[in-house]
Amino acid sequence: MSNVLEIIPLGGIGEFGMNCTLLRFGDEMIVVDAGMGFPEESVYGVDICIPDFEILEQYRDEITAIVLTHGHEDHLGALPYILKKFNVPVYASRFTLGLAESKLDEHGILGDVMLHCVEPRDVVTIGSFAIEFIRASHSLIDCFSLAIKTPVGTIIHTGDYKVDETPVIGEPIDLRTLRRYGQEGVLALLSDSTNATVPGRTPSERAVIPAFEEIFAEAKGRIIVAGFASSIHRIQIVFDVAQQFNRKVCVLGRSMQKNVEIADRLGYLDIHDGMLVGINEAKHLRDDEIVFLVTGSQAEPRAALYQMATQIYKGLTIEETDTVVLSARIIPGNERAISRLIGFIYKKGANIIEEKRRLIHVSGHASQEDIRIMTEAVRPKFLVPIHGEYRMLFRHKEFVKNHMGFPEANIILIENGDVLELDGERAAVIDRREVKRTFIDDSGFEEIDYETVRERKKMANEGMITLLVTLNDQTGELEGAPQIIAQGVRGFESTNGNGSNRKTQVSSYEGSKQLVKDAQDVVMAAIAGASRQMLADFSLLKEHLRVELKRFIQKETGARPVIVPVIQKLD
Amino acid sequence: MSNVLEIIPLGGIGEFGMNCTLLRFGDEMIVVDAGMGFPEESVYGVDICIPDFEILEQYRDEITAIVLTHGHEDHLGALPYILKKFNVPVYASRFTLGLAESKLDEHGILGDVMLHCVEPRDVVTIGSFAIEFIRASHSLIDCFSLAIKTPVGTIIHTGDYKVDETPVIGEPIDLRTLRRYGQEGVLALLSDSTNATVPGRTPSERAVIPAFEEIFAEAKGRIIVAGFASSIHRIQIVFDVAQQFNRKVCVLGRSMQKNVEIADRLGYLDIHDGMLVGINEAKHLRDDEIVFLVTGSQAEPRAALYQMATQIYKGLTIEETDTVVLSARIIPGNERAISRLIGFIYKKGANIIEEKRRLIHVSGHASQEDIRIMTEAVRPKFLVPIHGEYRMLFRHKEFVKNHMGFPEANIILIENGDVLELDGERAAVIDRREVKRTFIDDSGFEEIDYETVRERKKMANEGMITLLVTLNDQTGELEGAPQIIAQGVRGFESTNGNGSNRKTQVSSYEGSKQLVKDAQDVVMAAIAGASRQMLADFSLLKEHLRVELKRFIQKETGARPVIVPVIQKLD
Repeated sequence: MSNVLEIIPLGGIGEFGMNCTLLRFGDEMIVVDAGMGFPEESVYGVDICIPDFEILEQYRDEITAIVLTHGHEDHLGALPYILKKFNVPVYASRFTLGLAESKLDEHGILGDVMLHCVEPRDVVTIGSFAIEFIRASHSLIDCFSLAIKTPVGTIIHTGDYKVDETPVIGEPIDLRTLRRYGQEGVLALLSDSTNATVPGRTPSERAVIPAFEEIFAEAKGRIIVAGFASSIHRIQIVFDVAQQFNRKVCVLGRSMQKNVEIADRLGYLDIHDGMLVGINEAKHLRDDEIVFLVTGSQAEPRAALYQMATQIYKGLTIEETDTVVLSARIIPGNERAISRLIGFIYKKGANIIEEKRRLIHVSGHASQEDIRIMTEAVRPKFLVPIHGEYRMLFRHKEFVKNHMGFPEANIILIENGDVLELDGERAAVIDRREVKRTFIDDSGFEEIDYETVRERKKMANEGMITLLVTLNDQTGELEGAPQIIAQGVRGFESTNGNGSNRKTQVSSYEGSKQLVKDAQDVVMAAIAGASRQMLADFSLLKEHLRVELKRFIQKETGARPVIVPVIQKLD
Repeated sequence: MSNVLEIIPLGGIGEFGMNCTLLRFGDEMIVVDAGMGFPEESVYGVDICIPDFEILEQYRDEITAIVLTHGHEDHLGALPYILKKFNVPVYASRFTLGLAESKLDEHGILGDVMLHCVEPRDVVTIGSFAIEFIRASHSLIDCFSLAIKTPVGTIIHTGDYKVDETPVIGEPIDLRTLRRYGQEGVLALLSDSTNATVPGRTPSERAVIPAFEEIFAEAKGRIIVAGFASSIHRIQIVFDVAQQFNRKVCVLGRSMQKNVEIADRLGYLDIHDGMLVGINEAKHLRDDEIVFLVTGSQAEPRAALYQMATQIYKGLTIEETDTVVLSARIIPGNERAISRLIGFIYKKGANIIEEKRRLIHVSGHASQEDIRIMTEAVRPKFLVPIHGEYRMLFRHKEFVKNHMGFPEANIILIENGDVLELDGERAAVIDRREVKRTFIDDSGFEEIDYETVRERKKMANEGMITLLVTLNDQTGELEGAPQIIAQGVRGFESTNGNGSNRKTQVSSYEGSKQLVKDAQDVVMAAIAGASRQMLADFSLLKEHLRVELKRFIQKETGARPVIVPVIQKLD
């Protein structure tokens, strides 16, 4: 058993989301965060992905705890999946646990897990690790940075943070405690890089209040505020400004309703009696007496805002006199969808307030000057940028090197799967594990294996042909003509799978019929020319037929569909 | 024959790209621009789309000309497709024709078309239309706005433009001629809205020169400039600054090489002898003697920059001492890919100059103050915002209404397919045609029908199952067990289509085998329970089997794959 600390990120490095980091000393391991990611493969029926927890199997008996910095999905979302495999104690803040409980309940495992609530400044000793939970400020509430004392030195993990001295809910970031650790000596700082490309300071959560007050003062009709369901500070601001302007608040969208309920129940939100109204009451109020706080800032088609903009949602639709406030950033990848949604809202004649035109959204992540404050407080020997694409990690490095004089040799850029070894003096990547990711299907519960997604990709690109050959078991002769079943293949009339009627131009239909006939001839010729060995081993015969058919189709049409040969024996 | 002008956009309204507008008076019609679009359906094997030219069939004998404002793909790219269907004369500038010829040649129709070269201030009379070609400034060269005199009044079509008084190549925008039309009276201005959300003026093409000079002065190693192949002004700047700093230029990437060749051959580029070098010569130069001008600013995987960043491209790979300049905007939708590409380049240790950090890119489109200048010059009775998503069209309207006092009733927001009728006094949308779009497959030549893309989408999302049932023609009895062939379906082991080996966990394999067995039982039960009518009409039987199998799979696994039943009769 060697006397070194290993830090192994399973996710969150070189990518946004899916944050999860292992810390291992001797035969003890803790897991910091268990986040989900949002893959680009969403067109293939997978909305989310989680870290590949298979890699943890080899450490099964070593894992002593999961520690959560905060409750955002990219830090918490994979918790049910990891707990189903490794049921170890979880440590988190009260609000984070509130979100976690709701999630574990959906997965039906809430009764079987060990959840421990910790308060700021609590120190929890788990084997060789002593973890202090330090108040961090962020767009969410009740967030932590972690000071993890290990036998080789103290590691500070910032979690997600910005330096907000005036948050709307709760206390500011606890720089004092971070500085105390800095004075005592910190071996390594694992630090949020999400906004490392942004100069200056990140504004306080309070910074949006003036713009909201202006918008509420100007609006004559209904106000619809779309934001992230997890922006609890922002939600409080909407309630506060609504009260100031004599409006009630109606919350729409499942995740927004859930988070408001949890935050209210746990006492984080300050909602005055009668301020929160249901949809039926909301409909009876005058237009200038109501605010709708809704999901859908990213133009998700099933969310409240999109539904209201394009059809009728629970009896509501966007009208000419409405003011719609998009109080959220655009998550990269959603630009086109959001622009289209804004178009729909403009078509309704409503007034839209976008982020770029007024200060109605602030980031929850540290900009460069926040990074400076954090790094100067902690004064680590080594700096390890985490949370972000490689571009942000690099810019984080560049900033502390060029603008803070941090020694370049002590800034360590790692990637998912890297094993970073620290012995108190040196830090080095000594190994790299292959870490994959696990897709979860749209239902949000079932894992989809990578191969299934790969097959969907291939079919999506060029379609699929099933080739069916029926052979007589006795004679080995072909029974009937080979069947060519095409779906989504250029040049081929598709076999209609869903009972819908479809008009087709005669010419293309005739062309397709001829193509199928020629393809059948090719397959029959291939069978006639098959070797004795192929006829004895169907896997060889299938591959032979696949290659011949593929060659023919590519030559005739240029298309390269997935081809699946099936051989059926009948007697 | 009524005495009105009809304006019918086939594309470019409510979307970026695919610009194409019909102008019709009496029984004469001209087509302004024939652009391609870049659909979000690219994962389904379609890289580009073009307007639905089917709608033109009804006007086949009326179409007298195609007029091109400039040579960008979103104005020119569909030209081969429309000419294959309607071989009418084309009018365009010399450089636009240079690009058009290259494209028509690729399609093998260059010898069969009528191309007419026009110079600025030329007036071409085509039936009832007299068209003056007016110099416009843009990121491309040799661009036109059009003044189209019709019996009901003059229409100004801006094309793409910005007000650039100091372009790098050619003369500035011809505001004088636009003002002359304004004085004579303009019925309607069809005006570019792409940048209508951007305050202020769009900088001149020259504005990037200082940043390029700084970058060249600082760079010790090789310089790699990635940009749009069509940014001819920018290309000239790279050659100029390279010469100033004693570097040669090597052009990489097919479209960049093609455009440099055309612009150089037609005399638009000013390239001094020996400045342009091939790749072999470039490799023999010292690092501080060479600039690579490359494609791939949008992180296209097959383009030069991506290849150089991730592997070896023609013997070149990005190195630590390189300076990479991303001299282009990020086209919405490409953010994630570009950010990843930047990560790859950072990993190589190279220095990256991004647009946000230095003025190395300017837009080619009119910002709000450019729009003001255009609108004040033309002084139209009606304003019709074109080119852009609905959001931009609306902001265009909002700007001229709120900041220029343009009468709201005379600002007309139209959509693709709208028939805007003008009689000289009034303007009104009197009809809406259904306009679709036509997908073109990755080869860039073949049309893909919408149904094929729709099928690919469905398969991509949940996979596909082919159900094969073989019935005895005499007895009507099932021959052998029904075959369930799954591809990309959650819970089902796939029938291996591509000969690759695949390791599978035994448990899931066993689960899949049981699922297939149960599904076969369901199908056999469904056949046993089929009505006499179904057995006589296979389309009824297929639908029956599809519904039963679908119900079973959804109940067992939650998955909803495309199910294609096939019934084969054997005797």
